[in-house]
Amino acid sequence: METVYFNGKFIPKEEVKISPDDRGFLFGDGVYEVIRWYEGFFYDMNSHVSRLGRSLREIRINWDDRGLFPSVAGELLKINKLENQPAMVYLQVTRGEARRSHSFPSPEVTPTVYAYAWGFVPDTASKEKGIKVMMKEDIRWSRCDIKSIALLANTISFQEAYENGLKECIFVRSGLITEGSRSNIFFVIDGTLFTHPESNHILSGVTRKNVLRIAEEAGIKIREEAVAENRIRLIQEAFITNTSAEVTPVTEIGGNTLGDGIPGKVTRLIQGKFDAETVSSKG
Amino acid sequence: METVYFNGKFIPKEEVKISPDDRGFLFGDGVYEVIRWYEGFFYDMNSHVSRLGRSLREIRINWDDRGLFPSVAGELLKINKLENQPAMVYLQVTRGEARRSHSFPSPEVTPTVYAYAWGFVPDTASKEKGIKVMMKEDIRWSRCDIKSIALLANTISFQEAYENGLKECIFVRSGLITEGSRSNIFFVIDGTLFTHPESNHILSGVTRKNVLRIAEEAGIKIREEAVAENRIRLIQEAFITNTSAEVTPVTEIGGNTLGDGIPGKVTRLIQGKFDAETVSSKG
Repeated sequence: METVYFNGKFIPKEEVKISPDDRGFLFGDGVYEVIRWYEGFFYDMNSHVSRLGRSLREIRINWDDRGLFPSVAGELLKINKLENQPAMVYLQVTRGEARRSHSFPSPEVTPTVYAYAWGFVPDTASKEKGIKVMMKEDIRWSRCDIKSIALLANTISFQEAYENGLKECIFVRSGLITEGSRSNIFFVIDGTLFTHPESNHILSGVTRKNVLRIAEEAGIKIREEAVAENRIRLIQEAFITNTSAEVTPVTEIGGNTLGDGIPGKVTRLIQGKFDAETVSSKG
Repeated sequence: METVYFNGKFIPKEEVKISPDDRGFLFGDGVYEVIRWYEGFFYDMNSHVSRLGRSLREIRINWDDRGLFPSVAGELLKINKLENQPAMVYLQVTRGEARRSHSFPSPEVTPTVYAYAWGFVPDTASKEKGIKVMMKEDIRWSRCDIKSIALLANTISFQEAYENGLKECIFVRSGLITEGSRSNIFFVIDGTLFTHPESNHILSGVTRKNVLRIAEEAGIKIREEAVAENRIRLIQEAFITNTSAEVTPVTEIGGNTLGDGIPGKVTRLIQGKFDAETVSSKG
């Protein structure tokens, strides 16, 4: 039986009852985080807690208990006996229950908090061989920096990729490559690592941030600068990053084979260093 | 006690149990409609049913029973004894329950259908005196033609207007005025009626469509053409339209007083004709 966290309690999933008045259900009015458990530690929990706080602030949901995320996540692993395997924890906070109205509930209501954990099987084949991704116009809103649950644009775009046998949909806005439907993307052009700068058009990924740090430590030249779609033929390597894919090489984008069509050297270097960090605390 | 419609049944609202796995709750992955009851008939039910069908098709939710909307709506009014007063019916369809994954559930799952009705008090003061509205950059996605429940951009924008004592937030995209957070908008410039053309940047409003018909029947010159933000000083009249506001005059937009700061003649003409249609079946 699966135990989840719901509004302060650990209860069987079957007992969770979301109200039809929940603003998550009516408006997508909420934010979320997903964190990876590496059989012994959560990867960069601080960054996830801090980003959760930022998302909540940006859409003005007052949930003062975001500092509970680490203990809730840890407890979910323990109760569900997931501590000794790769696992993930999802947590979302919505503005709470109120009669449907575009304006925020007044007086304020208690946010709805829901979290659950699951055993995770890493996609090692993709990490090894690399993936092919599609490209399309970015149809999302212009506050992609908020990790909101209003993800319809992301789900229908990802589905489009999936049905074409591709593993991610990469967005292009005003001719510039922004990020994927559920990942950030990096490019290597003549030895320099490029990725879209932090802005309202991308999510500030926790893995993205750590990859930038790792690349800097490795002495790789970095430019946080968007790559134009029309410069695709100049790209030798690419990889996506997120909590579950970690560093996953991209060998083809929008039908264009990158480099030799196999994961590149810079990608492998960064991937290796990232993987090393995720096992460092295990021994 | 309030009775609502949930997955084929009319039940007390308290008994509705939305699963935390519902894609409405996790992704805003669903669409909705709101229809107005005029003590005797629903206004243009056909257009609402047809738009619901379009929204469902666009995001590929297979709900074959959208033809039930009229009978579900009628039944909700009857059970809740709302037939003899102004009322509204809300209906939303989400992709259903499945383990969280950006890709659509496979095999397909049954959509979640939720509807409820409520007694409605028209905002006659606003219809009479007109409203003041704010303007800001359109932060929404680029598929505003889909009446999706992923409305976070709309709710936070409307809230901004509300907190500034304004009744709507009007969006501007690439310098052009598109529509409001929950309404379409019309302008009168030198006797010609302007409104943004149907496109992926606005919702094809049912009231909008009927207003265009009414204006044409009245011999008013119409241009379905976006008005640029920098042409605001040329605007003599404006009004918003939606199912609840019907035709509501706008007297100030983004701090600019329109005309004499009172509802204009063309606005009053259209408003009068619209109102006449909504009472025509009562006598």
